[in-house]
Amino acid sequence: MILGAAPPPLRWWGWGDRETEVPRGLLTLLCEEAGLPGGVTSHPVGLDDVQLPASSLAEALHGRLSDIAGAANVRVDPAERVRHAAGRNYLDLLALRAGRLAAAPDAVVCPGSPGEVAGVLRAASEAACAVVPFGGGTSVVGGVAPERGPLPSVIALDLRRLDTVIDVDVVARTATLQAGMRGPQAEHALQARGLTLGHFPQSFEYATIGGYAATRSAGQASTGYGRFDELARGLRLIAPAGEIAVAAVPASAAGPSLLQVVLGSEGALGVITEVTVRVHATPRRRRYAGWSLPDFESGTALLRELAQDRIAPDVARLSDADETRASLALAAGPAIDVARRYLGFRGHREPCLLVLGWEGDGAAIGTRERLAHPLLRRHGAIALGTAPGRAWLHGRFDGPYLRDALLDRGVLVETLETAAAWSRLAAVKAAVNGALQRSLRARGTPPLVGCHVSHVYSDGASLYFTVLGRQDPGHEVAQWTEAKRAATDALLGCGGTLTHHHGVGVDHAPWLEREDGATGISALRAVKARLDPDGIMNPGKLFC
Amino acid sequence: MILGAAPPPLRWWGWGDRETEVPRGLLTLLCEEAGLPGGVTSHPVGLDDVQLPASSLAEALHGRLSDIAGAANVRVDPAERVRHAAGRNYLDLLALRAGRLAAAPDAVVCPGSPGEVAGVLRAASEAACAVVPFGGGTSVVGGVAPERGPLPSVIALDLRRLDTVIDVDVVARTATLQAGMRGPQAEHALQARGLTLGHFPQSFEYATIGGYAATRSAGQASTGYGRFDELARGLRLIAPAGEIAVAAVPASAAGPSLLQVVLGSEGALGVITEVTVRVHATPRRRRYAGWSLPDFESGTALLRELAQDRIAPDVARLSDADETRASLALAAGPAIDVARRYLGFRGHREPCLLVLGWEGDGAAIGTRERLAHPLLRRHGAIALGTAPGRAWLHGRFDGPYLRDALLDRGVLVETLETAAAWSRLAAVKAAVNGALQRSLRARGTPPLVGCHVSHVYSDGASLYFTVLGRQDPGHEVAQWTEAKRAATDALLGCGGTLTHHHGVGVDHAPWLEREDGATGISALRAVKARLDPDGIMNPGKLFC
Repeated sequence: MILGAAPPPLRWWGWGDRETEVPRGLLTLLCEEAGLPGGVTSHPVGLDDVQLPASSLAEALHGRLSDIAGAANVRVDPAERVRHAAGRNYLDLLALRAGRLAAAPDAVVCPGSPGEVAGVLRAASEAACAVVPFGGGTSVVGGVAPERGPLPSVIALDLRRLDTVIDVDVVARTATLQAGMRGPQAEHALQARGLTLGHFPQSFEYATIGGYAATRSAGQASTGYGRFDELARGLRLIAPAGEIAVAAVPASAAGPSLLQVVLGSEGALGVITEVTVRVHATPRRRRYAGWSLPDFESGTALLRELAQDRIAPDVARLSDADETRASLALAAGPAIDVARRYLGFRGHREPCLLVLGWEGDGAAIGTRERLAHPLLRRHGAIALGTAPGRAWLHGRFDGPYLRDALLDRGVLVETLETAAAWSRLAAVKAAVNGALQRSLRARGTPPLVGCHVSHVYSDGASLYFTVLGRQDPGHEVAQWTEAKRAATDALLGCGGTLTHHHGVGVDHAPWLEREDGATGISALRAVKARLDPDGIMNPGKLFC
Repeated sequence: MILGAAPPPLRWWGWGDRETEVPRGLLTLLCEEAGLPGGVTSHPVGLDDVQLPASSLAEALHGRLSDIAGAANVRVDPAERVRHAAGRNYLDLLALRAGRLAAAPDAVVCPGSPGEVAGVLRAASEAACAVVPFGGGTSVVGGVAPERGPLPSVIALDLRRLDTVIDVDVVARTATLQAGMRGPQAEHALQARGLTLGHFPQSFEYATIGGYAATRSAGQASTGYGRFDELARGLRLIAPAGEIAVAAVPASAAGPSLLQVVLGSEGALGVITEVTVRVHATPRRRRYAGWSLPDFESGTALLRELAQDRIAPDVARLSDADETRASLALAAGPAIDVARRYLGFRGHREPCLLVLGWEGDGAAIGTRERLAHPLLRRHGAIALGTAPGRAWLHGRFDGPYLRDALLDRGVLVETLETAAAWSRLAAVKAAVNGALQRSLRARGTPPLVGCHVSHVYSDGASLYFTVLGRQDPGHEVAQWTEAKRAATDALLGCGGTLTHHHGVGVDHAPWLEREDGATGISALRAVKARLDPDGIMNPGKLFC
């Protein structure tokens, strides 16, 4: 990944722009435990072979949009429509690879300024055309699904031309960035000034600043740098009914937080065109190290104490025994065998891998790491040195590439996540795991379910589940939909939140009322009705 | 102050329950620089002599409220109405002391359960009676002013009977507290379990958990423990149209934050009946120490670097030269004279006092303090030892008591506050100071204006101004209203927020649209209209 370079487009049917092989060890594990045949069973169709409905964009609206954004920035060609027809969850990828799209935007519009965004929304409102704000297109919850609701047409509003730095305040350490900047572009611009945003979700290479804000994104280092809803201090939202500009201030008691109404609004209230974020000095040093924990409970107790003693590192990832086993399978080789035997000898028969990362200047890193050592020892951690940390850092954005290769081999591969209080974490984990296992085993497709904690807070932590299994041919959608539904019911039933960082989109929308309550949803819908009276903004998502 | 003891009621005309004398040194300063005559010029009238409008509570509503909350909990006697007729800002105190109340609640209702709160709101909605939620009654922005808007009557809804601990989760370190608990009650209950909320606003002795939430309160140690809007993780709001229960989760990406809509809602959306807060282990040790800085700019640069390097202490208070001078006058004595000469000799001719406080276990405190030392040296700080820190800790809640004694002597005494980016802090400070000076000098009442930073963030800090001057007899209201207006225009004009922690209430309401914009206000009003369709909740405050 080259910071600042124009990122290569996402493959229209998958991720990134490079081929990945499934590591042999992981393939063996899947064959042995999930009954995977092992060979390549499917390939994506060619772009020309994708079936999608014809564009229903009215000619008058096409003309008006062209007048606003320029004819070259209003695209109705199939290739561009396909590229904006889906996000990147498992079912999106199955549909794309098969070339069968139930829906696609009738046009893709790329405005070049906030004024053009406002113009597009005006035109769309008047023509009763739905608008799907589109950043990196990396949503894994259907956040960019081209839903039109009851309206006759829908456009994707792609923000890629809004990609400049508006302002950097080096004294206050804030930066105002346009919403269409992708992660690497933003980092490149900031690092030239000795600064970093420190926000690295797995989708970093493609996701945008506006997308981070619209979905309350969390990055891999958010334990240290803060979630995006903590980094964001101000923003600009262009809604059909007007504009909300939240000026960046360090803190305020001036009533309810408009900022926190717009963050997480997922395009349902309007289009976020810029965000003012807190930034940090580029760390002079990074130290990432690995430990083995004897079990998951020791690991979570350790992380809890680190967080509650306010000495949590910047990155903290604790894998459960199953995920650790899969990670070791991924990295299989003689060195891993030696390590595994050594850990077994030390009593870690089902080790849980912990990666901790500190970033900052050398002295501060040393001090912070030393404060953590007594806790690590107390919870039975065995130091594995910096190799696992470096390996994790090196591969931190690789998951979605590997997924494409797994799909070639007929693997069901998906993730889901939540967060819960420390006191409920074990129950949530067990319930979700049980629900997934029961649902998928009932079909004769026993899954491998790995879980890790990736974000820690004083009062709780996130849980991130990875599910790997054999696809049920001809029933892929039902197979996953049922398992996902069971897992979601399970986590909500145990006090987990509907989503820690993936967002709501289409997929989680049916459960949002369980999280927010009927009166809460009604209050949010009132905001929606005021800002988007014609209901054109991202129908079908969130509370719409 | 005794933790847990039933707090003595606020004196109906002032603060607390004890007499305070104006220290001689301060009195001298006020006589010399503000032209104060010096003697006692006024006393509060007797409670029986207070003039207030007769109660206009309809008999039917009185009966219905009595049915809901019990007759003893529906009070219409003048004493109780007076006690709920005003908050505690300068103009409130002038009105109370003079016994001239333009308005008072027609009744004071004390529901004993959330169900009774809901019942009271239903009855009030049906009878078109305004409801002012009332916690500690310590608002300094008119947050509990008994405004009725266009409605025929208004009641104060006093939450003092909702004062129990609902739950403490010692593993997740969260506590669910009823809204009517006062600061000392909450601390007492938590400290019995080895925990602390760590929230100490100057109003701590009287303010309530619900009030903290409704106003986005900040406490003196919020730099370390977090503002109340960071401590709050969940809450329950009873609105006329229904109830919003936000379950406590560590973090969530499930759409806009309902929690952050209710926090800061100042009773305009409904009544907060309980809050789930993050709590912390009671610190084993506290170390508070003082430093002298050569000037305010060095001090703010130091605080900025501490915050941006993530080594800010739990308490950080930097006084400007004028406030330091007043503080030294307050503490006048031979030791102070020696210190002043020593500092002058070291080049600090107009010293700025800095108090830093660390709380936690001994080792962590030592480590954190050591990390700060190189920065202190670099910015020319001279260590003053722990005496100034202890003195500040000892007197941290004394301000409002002293105010009563100053009012006896005809002093204009008021505070106002804001927060701004580090890059704008000096400009905001100069503008506010200039506006206050110009406005009050134009009347021939030159003020002493002190300023301190009390909360630091990576991107900026709060500024807290104290104004002392001679009252303009017969024109006290206009004198302060004009000065306050000038100061507010000035701080907004330079990028400060309308309020960092005092809230909006009646006083700041005219400026809220400058902060939130017309579309933003309209979105918040839509929430209000949905939750409180009859507009009974706290009229005249915030955006109503």
